[in-house]
Amino acid sequence: MPHISSKAVAMPASPIRKLVPFAEAAKKKGRKVYHLNIGQPDIETPEVVRNKMKELDLKVVEYSNSDGIAAYRQGLTKYYASKSIDLTPEQIMVTTGGSEALVFAFMTCFNPGDEVIIPEPFYANYNGFAVMAGVTVVPVMSSIDTGFALPPIDAFEQLITPKTKGILICNPGNPTGYLYSKAELEQLRDVVKKHDLFLMADEVYREFAYDGAVPSSILNLEGLDDNAIMIDSVSKRYSMCGARIGAMITRNKEVMASAMKFAQARLSPPTFGQMASLYALETPQSYFDGVVDEYVERRNILIDGLNTIPGVICPKPKGAFYCIAELPIDDSDVFCQWMLETFEYNNQTVMMAPATGFYSKPEPGRKQVRLAYVLNKEALNASVEVLREALKVYPGKTI
Amino acid sequence: MPHISSKAVAMPASPIRKLVPFAEAAKKKGRKVYHLNIGQPDIETPEVVRNKMKELDLKVVEYSNSDGIAAYRQGLTKYYASKSIDLTPEQIMVTTGGSEALVFAFMTCFNPGDEVIIPEPFYANYNGFAVMAGVTVVPVMSSIDTGFALPPIDAFEQLITPKTKGILICNPGNPTGYLYSKAELEQLRDVVKKHDLFLMADEVYREFAYDGAVPSSILNLEGLDDNAIMIDSVSKRYSMCGARIGAMITRNKEVMASAMKFAQARLSPPTFGQMASLYALETPQSYFDGVVDEYVERRNILIDGLNTIPGVICPKPKGAFYCIAELPIDDSDVFCQWMLETFEYNNQTVMMAPATGFYSKPEPGRKQVRLAYVLNKEALNASVEVLREALKVYPGKTI
Repeated sequence: MPHISSKAVAMPASPIRKLVPFAEAAKKKGRKVYHLNIGQPDIETPEVVRNKMKELDLKVVEYSNSDGIAAYRQGLTKYYASKSIDLTPEQIMVTTGGSEALVFAFMTCFNPGDEVIIPEPFYANYNGFAVMAGVTVVPVMSSIDTGFALPPIDAFEQLITPKTKGILICNPGNPTGYLYSKAELEQLRDVVKKHDLFLMADEVYREFAYDGAVPSSILNLEGLDDNAIMIDSVSKRYSMCGARIGAMITRNKEVMASAMKFAQARLSPPTFGQMASLYALETPQSYFDGVVDEYVERRNILIDGLNTIPGVICPKPKGAFYCIAELPIDDSDVFCQWMLETFEYNNQTVMMAPATGFYSKPEPGRKQVRLAYVLNKEALNASVEVLREALKVYPGKTI
Repeated sequence: MPHISSKAVAMPASPIRKLVPFAEAAKKKGRKVYHLNIGQPDIETPEVVRNKMKELDLKVVEYSNSDGIAAYRQGLTKYYASKSIDLTPEQIMVTTGGSEALVFAFMTCFNPGDEVIIPEPFYANYNGFAVMAGVTVVPVMSSIDTGFALPPIDAFEQLITPKTKGILICNPGNPTGYLYSKAELEQLRDVVKKHDLFLMADEVYREFAYDGAVPSSILNLEGLDDNAIMIDSVSKRYSMCGARIGAMITRNKEVMASAMKFAQARLSPPTFGQMASLYALETPQSYFDGVVDEYVERRNILIDGLNTIPGVICPKPKGAFYCIAELPIDDSDVFCQWMLETFEYNNQTVMMAPATGFYSKPEPGRKQVRLAYVLNKEALNASVEVLREALKVYPGKTI
């Protein structure tokens, strides 16, 4: 029997995946499981998309251009202009989700063995894309004490070696919800300019900014046109994760021309999803306003609620729809499994993501979990109560 | 300015891409260009897909499972059963096109530096996927004299080194149209068993088999369950290339479990495309019969026509919708460009793919072109006449 590759062995498994059988078993027992573990929002896809998709009649469901449907790329320039980001269609490559955009960016910019610095905790799948490209992730620690603000720029400088080729951030952040300030981004700009690095930013949560905050794009940092690569996606923006449409955006012509070779090899991004994304450009501002209002209420219920539980610390994020909470527990992997396997309160329980999977080494996440506030307010209120009761009786509790 | 990776530099550009500006310029002059250069059929997507997609109303366009929608995978087992291929849903991973299935298979089975043997001429994008995975393609030459039959198995044996980890075939073949016999596949089975290799087969043209031929799947080769990985796609089968839905299929549990980690990292294949593919399972046999009848007529017009042109040799393929023709010319790259840039006959010309891009080194393809018979009969008749006239006056003609 032939053996799989060492790359496949090194590929990390989804940290939540091992909990899935326990969640299924809990449901089989008739237990209500609140899923705060994933970033699949319950928010409806805009009506304009649903209506127009029903009118769509493609006689032949053809390939699109490898860099996307021209009308969609043109339309995207208007969307970005509305966010004060000036782009031409040639600077936008439509991809199969933000995931593919990251893989293309990694493979275009980094060689196997190169290093990319990423503030941790970070989105676990960055590890997977790094393994695919043979790239080494070098983490730089952010702290719950600062709400996961950008680590001191000195900490980045100390990690830079001749192998360092880039810095990757997520802004607003998954899993932290932290929204980088313009000043923090300018610090990053200065360090990547100084060391001739790429700066990649996953900005897929742009629309999810609260309390009047306005996210800054790395594409608006002065003097960074050759260094900046922005990753985007319609998944969260229009609650259409299944469309699998993202974008890799850069003003660096060499990067774009080279990424185009990867795009051509896989022929084209999905046609149906691109049409849905084209229609989604007509989504009225009222849709986003409603969504933001809803998420602010959800955030307040969850985070304020969590902070009333003895021993729980949870910074209030200004963006995205996740938070990292520190719990008075021994081991978040054990705790999250125990919640599904053993605990119930009024026949309900909560599924969370152990934060161990969001750090390069599990230790800093041992007492932390990631919660996504993607459920309605009632479910979130109930989840907080379930967690409060659970922490009273969990055998591994530390207070 | 930071530099792109050497991987990006090594990534091959599409061999047809450089001809596109010349085709566009020809059209601007008002010239009719017959596109025999690409595998985008003009055949309509089945009506059942178009009708059902109009009724589809997804309130939330959600992620699917990483390995695909359960009902679709279940439905696929019935489709394969109708082709005498016994599978369970667990042996089928739904992917974003056959392209992604190949990337997952390469990354799961091959390490950077490993070698995969591929009969040439072969589908040019295999080179791109190999670069992405860091794998070395080792070509084994097939000949136009045998209609591009499987090279002698000794030729494979001679190429096997300690680094060889697999053999990849395309059956029926793009770009040759050749359909491997059961006996040829059994030779491949024996050699991969002997040397403990993976055998991968791109079988996306399964439905396009002519003159009563029935393609054999590598999944039906006895004793090969641990070695065989089949790549499939709905792109050609239902003329819905833009759906971007394929599959990686294997009975090797370790390969499937490892590939699943790559699938999870990119979250899910496209939801709209999967729904279209689910509906496509209801396509009546009459649709396929009609399509095959149409392609047989098209093939006969093109190949019989080509063989009436002095100096042209074109084997008649039994599958897919491509052929490789040898022309009395000096250089197919120069010729194909000249056709677009200079030549016209009754204000028409033909765009073809130089076969240089289908060989690992361009030399064997210097006098060959690939033609796709994806246009209607009238257009194909006209294309043959245009080519006949062109070969009378082309400055680099060799007869």
